[in-house]
Amino acid sequence: MIKVMIAGFTGAMGQKAIRLVQNTKNLQMVAGFAPSAKNPDPKKYGLNSNVKIFHRLDDVKTDANIWIDFTLPSAVYDDTKFAIQHHICPVIGTSGMSADQMKSLQKLSEKEHVGGVIAPNFGLSAVLLMKFAQMAAKYFPDVEIIEMHHGDKADAPSGTALNTAQLIDKVRPRHEQGAKHPIENLKGVRGGDYHGIRIHSVRLPGYIAHEQVLFGGPGEALTIRQDSFDRGSFMKGVKIASLKVTKLDHVVVGLENLL
Amino acid sequence: MIKVMIAGFTGAMGQKAIRLVQNTKNLQMVAGFAPSAKNPDPKKYGLNSNVKIFHRLDDVKTDANIWIDFTLPSAVYDDTKFAIQHHICPVIGTSGMSADQMKSLQKLSEKEHVGGVIAPNFGLSAVLLMKFAQMAAKYFPDVEIIEMHHGDKADAPSGTALNTAQLIDKVRPRHEQGAKHPIENLKGVRGGDYHGIRIHSVRLPGYIAHEQVLFGGPGEALTIRQDSFDRGSFMKGVKIASLKVTKLDHVVVGLENLL
Amino acid sequence: MIKVMIAGFTGAMGQKAIRLVQNTKNLQMVAGFAPSAKNPDPKKYGLNSNVKIFHRLDDVKTDANIWIDFTLPSAVYDDTKFAIQHHICPVIGTSGMSADQMKSLQKLSEKEHVGGVIAPNFGLSAVLLMKFAQMAAKYFPDVEIIEMHHGDKADAPSGTALNTAQLIDKVRPRHEQGAKHPIENLKGVRGGDYHGIRIHSVRLPGYIAHEQVLFGGPGEALTIRQDSFDRGSFMKGVKIASLKVTKLDHVVVGLENLL
Amino acid sequence: MIKVMIAGFTGAMGQKAIRLVQNTKNLQMVAGFAPSAKNPDPKKYGLNSNVKIFHRLDDVKTDANIWIDFTLPSAVYDDTKFAIQHHICPVIGTSGMSADQMKSLQKLSEKEHVGGVIAPNFGLSAVLLMKFAQMAAKYFPDVEIIEMHHGDKADAPSGTALNTAQLIDKVRPRHEQGAKHPIENLKGVRGGDYHGIRIHSVRLPGYIAHEQVLFGGPGEALTIRQDSFDRGSFMKGVKIASLKVTKLDHVVVGLENLL
Repeated sequence: MIKVMIAGFTGAMGQKAIRLVQNTKNLQMVAGFAPSAKNPDPKKYGLNSNVKIFHRLDDVKTDANIWIDFTLPSAVYDDTKFAIQHHICPVIGTSGMSADQMKSLQKLSEKEHVGGVIAPNFGLSAVLLMKFAQMAAKYFPDVEIIEMHHGDKADAPSGTALNTAQLIDKVRPRHEQGAKHPIENLKGVRGGDYHGIRIHSVRLPGYIAHEQVLFGGPGEALTIRQDSFDRGSFMKGVKIASLKVTKLDHVVVGLENLL
Repeated sequence: MIKVMIAGFTGAMGQKAIRLVQNTKNLQMVAGFAPSAKNPDPKKYGLNSNVKIFHRLDDVKTDANIWIDFTLPSAVYDDTKFAIQHHICPVIGTSGMSADQMKSLQKLSEKEHVGGVIAPNFGLSAVLLMKFAQMAAKYFPDVEIIEMHHGDKADAPSGTALNTAQLIDKVRPRHEQGAKHPIENLKGVRGGDYHGIRIHSVRLPGYIAHEQVLFGGPGEALTIRQDSFDRGSFMKGVKIASLKVTKLDHVVVGLENLL
Repeated sequence: MIKVMIAGFTGAMGQKAIRLVQNTKNLQMVAGFAPSAKNPDPKKYGLNSNVKIFHRLDDVKTDANIWIDFTLPSAVYDDTKFAIQHHICPVIGTSGMSADQMKSLQKLSEKEHVGGVIAPNFGLSAVLLMKFAQMAAKYFPDVEIIEMHHGDKADAPSGTALNTAQLIDKVRPRHEQGAKHPIENLKGVRGGDYHGIRIHSVRLPGYIAHEQVLFGGPGEALTIRQDSFDRGSFMKGVKIASLKVTKLDHVVVGLENLL
Repeated sequence: MIKVMIAGFTGAMGQKAIRLVQNTKNLQMVAGFAPSAKNPDPKKYGLNSNVKIFHRLDDVKTDANIWIDFTLPSAVYDDTKFAIQHHICPVIGTSGMSADQMKSLQKLSEKEHVGGVIAPNFGLSAVLLMKFAQMAAKYFPDVEIIEMHHGDKADAPSGTALNTAQLIDKVRPRHEQGAKHPIENLKGVRGGDYHGIRIHSVRLPGYIAHEQVLFGGPGEALTIRQDSFDRGSFMKGVKIASLKVTKLDHVVVGLENLL
């Protein structure tokens, strides 16, 4: 039985994590942590009476094996550090850490021999899309990416699309793609250029979060597409991570490293 | 019975046009014109003995009702003018005329009361896509276009994609689309901007000629897509035009005006 | 200004209808009706003090011009009849009426000269898909339908997919589709057969409600697809109906008749 | 340098194979075999003067390292056996062998320590689709397959679609998919059932050869799609096989075993 503490258990994602743990054999919730959870009575939150409730990081005392974290960008670094120092394996779904912070936590985990996962995207369809795209690029070096998000998303490209391009760029054979003397009659129409990989960002109301990777070769095409309709989809990835993370001896970044 | 002359009958599209006429009740080929067809014997070209063969425009003498033209950009204007002047209804699939040339031919046709069709794209799937896109834009003003062509196509966007955007622009309600303060972290990633309609051009080997129009609204999406696998698809449009053009009294531009 | 009564105003769709009316110039809510709304005070429901609240059909007295109905299959027929009899134009989004009931209400509306709309699906993307599919079938008689819904949907095909097939069947030219001597090595693999139009139903978790109509012709393909992510999308259709229904003089079935 | 013999070199695929070998460093054509190639002069076929031409299997004498075969179902078994017996590595793109024949050839190859590949489909996009689908099914056990082919294809499902289902079936966790009490209001609408995996076959003119594998999970979806526009796409797979096959010590079935 793997004992679980959930940081941010009162939030929307924290609540989903509670249900995940309750519905998974081999997982058992033993503690919850949230700054707003001033009442120490677990029954107030619909939890078993033996679940310990904390609202200050310094107060946390638990025999949990893993630390599932859906908190805030401002809190996640301290949370993760605390978890590693106390030999609780972090499973981090909170975004917002810098590359430096992640590296420092990885070093600490190696020293302490504590397994962990930091995943910007626990959605399994996105993780598999990236993995397959990287594999396909070895055989289909001609590739473009189209990501589609709701109209309110201000930034483009999406983090996942850029991440996909970076993964492809690492492995695809060096080559020239497209026409020798391209003519762009409307500026930007050929998309953003990441090391020769074109990325196109669509922003429309109704859409949620979707990505397609298009590969082409003489006489054929291969397309990998993922659709995220609901952030609840992250729980499948959290489950995989929770069941595997205690077997690691350091923190990895990206769920794909556990597949 | 509609009598047909085919200009450019020796070319690939001309040959397809011959088969179309042969396979269509109510159409009968009576003449063929091609500068390379020096031999006046129709049997040399696998045609019936009563088909007249011409290789100089000035020599053409025919009782044809319609003039199907798949020739060259350099020849098409003179061909069409000749047809109208001789009261033969032009069905023009040859591209390359300027807007001014087309206007001048339309004026001439009005004066002569001769019906005709000049269509940059006789592919019915593309024509219907444009028509439907224009209709949908009244209800879904948020729209983006993605066109995909083979890797050797140098220019972008495609003529059909730009044409689609222009048709949508004419009818869609004025409104602001997308986030208020968009951030493009990779230049061009949001595509080309035609009056607020974003167009994305994909160029990959294997692909032929494809276009998608994506509409989004609160909680829903509508997508219209067309795929051209083979220019032979144009013949369906040529057939529709050939059977209807004699009932017009002037030249129209775009097959959609006959649907 | 069009005065609106909302039947079923306490339900999820009723609440969306309230917000729609509040956000639309020319629409004003004057009454709400719901069996559970025992308290006559509109402020209890966050409504203006001049909105009248009813909880029994017989008590309803209102000068509303239109009657938006999102109630229950068991109530909708009586509601609609009541509205027509009182010369309030019904806009009915509640499903569950039989063909006979709808015919009887249409007759009544013709007698009373009252406009109205009964729409099994107010989602505009689905309505446009059906409209465009019917238009395209005239030119592309070869067609198949794929609909995709969440894994819990027990019945197949979806009502919209069947409706689409019926609309296409009415107009497409009679012809033979597919191979002359087809061989189905796995029973059912060619889908359901509605008058020669094949329908395929996919049921998978994650999916919500989606439909594709695929047309094929020599060398080309045309695909129309709609995605319903959220029933809130119905409000766009309710708005169109609400602004147009008072100009009708009888009840129509299907939002497409107002486009 | 790998020396290549091409069986069926006069056919359409054989001609493509010749160009592939000519354009690939490390590959050199040394012999061609075709029953119709009665003239022994390689120049007659546009080949180098040192290429040997054979038209009877028994006459074949060559120092070729690999034997690329695009012949006929009636010839392929004898060809492959001959190649293995003469320690020429077979690369077989000809379809039509029975499972028993393939097993017998595999046994022979093990005895003779000769590498080889028999591939029903050398299209890399199809092979990768199958590979990725099998990988994804471990995480997404809910899956359906849609394949689309031209209207003349009489049999359904396609061999590749059935093959994909079999590969998925081998690995996906046992589970119940779909609604508990499904209702099929139109017979066959839920597709063919292969061990619980639904397969849908679309047959439409214009389409060529396409397959989609759809995975769904709570709140997300993953789709893998491949399009074969042209059988020339097989050459990419033939190239991969040709460069790797000499390192094998027995015959494998399926290009995926070389990726």
